[in-house]
Amino acid sequence: MRDDEPFCQSVQSEDHTWAVVGATGLVGREVLSILEERGVSAGRVRLLASERSAGKVMRFAGEEIVIESVEGASFAGVDAAIFCASAEVARTYAPRAIEDGALVIDNSSAFRLDKDVPLVVPEINGHLLKDGPRLVANPNCSTIILLAALEPLRQWFGISGITVATYQAMSGAGQRGLEELAAQTRARATGEPVMPAYFAEPCAGNVFSHDSEVEAETGVNGEERKIIAESRKIWEDEHLRISPTCIRVPVERAHTQAITVELRAPAKESKLRDALASAPGLAIVDDRAANSFPTPLKATGQDDIFVGRIRRDPGSVGGQYDHDLRWCLLVSADQLRKGAALNAVQIALQALRAQVSRALL
Amino acid sequence: MRDDEPFCQSVQSEDHTWAVVGATGLVGREVLSILEERGVSAGRVRLLASERSAGKVMRFAGEEIVIESVEGASFAGVDAAIFCASAEVARTYAPRAIEDGALVIDNSSAFRLDKDVPLVVPEINGHLLKDGPRLVANPNCSTIILLAALEPLRQWFGISGITVATYQAMSGAGQRGLEELAAQTRARATGEPVMPAYFAEPCAGNVFSHDSEVEAETGVNGEERKIIAESRKIWEDEHLRISPTCIRVPVERAHTQAITVELRAPAKESKLRDALASAPGLAIVDDRAANSFPTPLKATGQDDIFVGRIRRDPGSVGGQYDHDLRWCLLVSADQLRKGAALNAVQIALQALRAQVSRALL
Repeated sequence: MRDDEPFCQSVQSEDHTWAVVGATGLVGREVLSILEERGVSAGRVRLLASERSAGKVMRFAGEEIVIESVEGASFAGVDAAIFCASAEVARTYAPRAIEDGALVIDNSSAFRLDKDVPLVVPEINGHLLKDGPRLVANPNCSTIILLAALEPLRQWFGISGITVATYQAMSGAGQRGLEELAAQTRARATGEPVMPAYFAEPCAGNVFSHDSEVEAETGVNGEERKIIAESRKIWEDEHLRISPTCIRVPVERAHTQAITVELRAPAKESKLRDALASAPGLAIVDDRAANSFPTPLKATGQDDIFVGRIRRDPGSVGGQYDHDLRWCLLVSADQLRKGAALNAVQIALQALRAQVSRALL
Repeated sequence: MRDDEPFCQSVQSEDHTWAVVGATGLVGREVLSILEERGVSAGRVRLLASERSAGKVMRFAGEEIVIESVEGASFAGVDAAIFCASAEVARTYAPRAIEDGALVIDNSSAFRLDKDVPLVVPEINGHLLKDGPRLVANPNCSTIILLAALEPLRQWFGISGITVATYQAMSGAGQRGLEELAAQTRARATGEPVMPAYFAEPCAGNVFSHDSEVEAETGVNGEERKIIAESRKIWEDEHLRISPTCIRVPVERAHTQAITVELRAPAKESKLRDALASAPGLAIVDDRAANSFPTPLKATGQDDIFVGRIRRDPGSVGGQYDHDLRWCLLVSADQLRKGAALNAVQIALQALRAQVSRALL
């Protein structure tokens, strides 16, 4: 959380007690790293995980914290419980956390499309947190990155359609995806045979269609369905035309997206750049002369979403499209930070601040 | 060249004398490998390269051939000279080869947009070879793969627009690109620092915007400009809407493309599949249940273009677009084979056959 974000001013992360469910996973660890960076002390953090990890210790802010099993855990005294586990874990334990008085932010897909649960990217629809929800869903990483990058264009010009092709990091598939990439990279470097185990396709030296289930009838995979349904819900636009193709690439961390966007109102390039430059959480990397643009390595470990290759859709020049309506962008962002952990912490802080405001009324 | 291709029946590759200019480069070597596979004997092949490589030997069909310097070389007795070198080399030596009586197929960008030079993908506009051109330009690899994959849809339904994001192999930048990828992959595997040398960005564990020059005014890079201009020329459609984003990925060989295509006439899925399945040079890899689709590793070393993820544009469902007009595809093809060397040999054989036909009249 950066100091210039208005919703951090009255509520700081160190004032609260946090529970991280799924603390040993990639997103859980990232949440802990963000809380640590923001000055939360070990006494304010509880770590929950599966029975398998219970009793082990993790270091946090220079101290050791013993991991508790989520199975029998009480959430009494917890202000915000960030669930970084499966949809099944969320469905099983989130009700208890809510009952115990915790605000639940869930990173899984369990509640995202539930009409009673807000699905929030703070820069876009943070106002939903003012109503005091006890459960908030964190969107899919690709959805967060895509919509947060495009939100200033939606606010300034309106958006009627998006075509996006993704270049998704292997860590999006969790620790096992990352380990498989490392093992296969070593194998390729030494000339040993590459044996796929976790992914159906070799993941080093290759790219492949996203590993989520492909719908038999439509041919659309799970990641693409999430992007479509979640974007329409977050932007409250059920007719939004959004055409994603999701692909995994041999990158450890940070997702990249090649985006073509169709605006509702024409934009001049300078104004479109103003919109992007003035948006919170975006960093423009767009040096045409140096051929320097967003890459996943630049975005790795960063909170900002990197935006570049800002240009008119060249296909519309001289064609039937309005020259000022269609634009292209290239975006890279750390899907474990803004795409998951950071967005969850931002939601929690904004919701907790709303609780405080309501209590003061 | 496969036996079922009609234009091979009367002229076989082994009947001719071939010169390969730039024989030591990646595309030159691939041309030689194709000629070897097709039964051409060493006595029918001349190898030309820069002064630096002159006098060295390369093995071909079990024999050794001495590389000649292109500088002083005569092309007398050569039926087809395949130029696999720079635009500068093509501009300097192609005129002499033509003067000496050779048919020149040039892989560089030197003549592609020259209105007097046919730019040919045999499956699309092979008829241009009937007029007996002495110089034929081979399109950019990404253009060949894109248009050859979409040609059956253009023939059956018409095409008004294309949005394409590429996942391009490092070997598209030549031997040095490939070496840099290998060196950086080893460095990452052993934990050594990765030092970019040839590319501006690290190429292992990363993706980056294509390394061609970015136009200051438009923000469109050289690879994208080639795709746009060459596609419009080959399809003879100067208003074709085509919106490419070209990205390099850490893959050794074979380019992948995520394509959204807008048809002129509506298509039913079964008919669209029939069109793709009946096209020469395409292989359908589209198993939704097994999540098995085209990948660059599957396409590596193959002549066919792999096509899959065939689906309606999900963004159009329930939206404003006609449900039957917009479709998505994922394509992988070996850019050194069909994207360069194979297409050049196919052009040469078809043009030589046309010469024979005319001589017989």
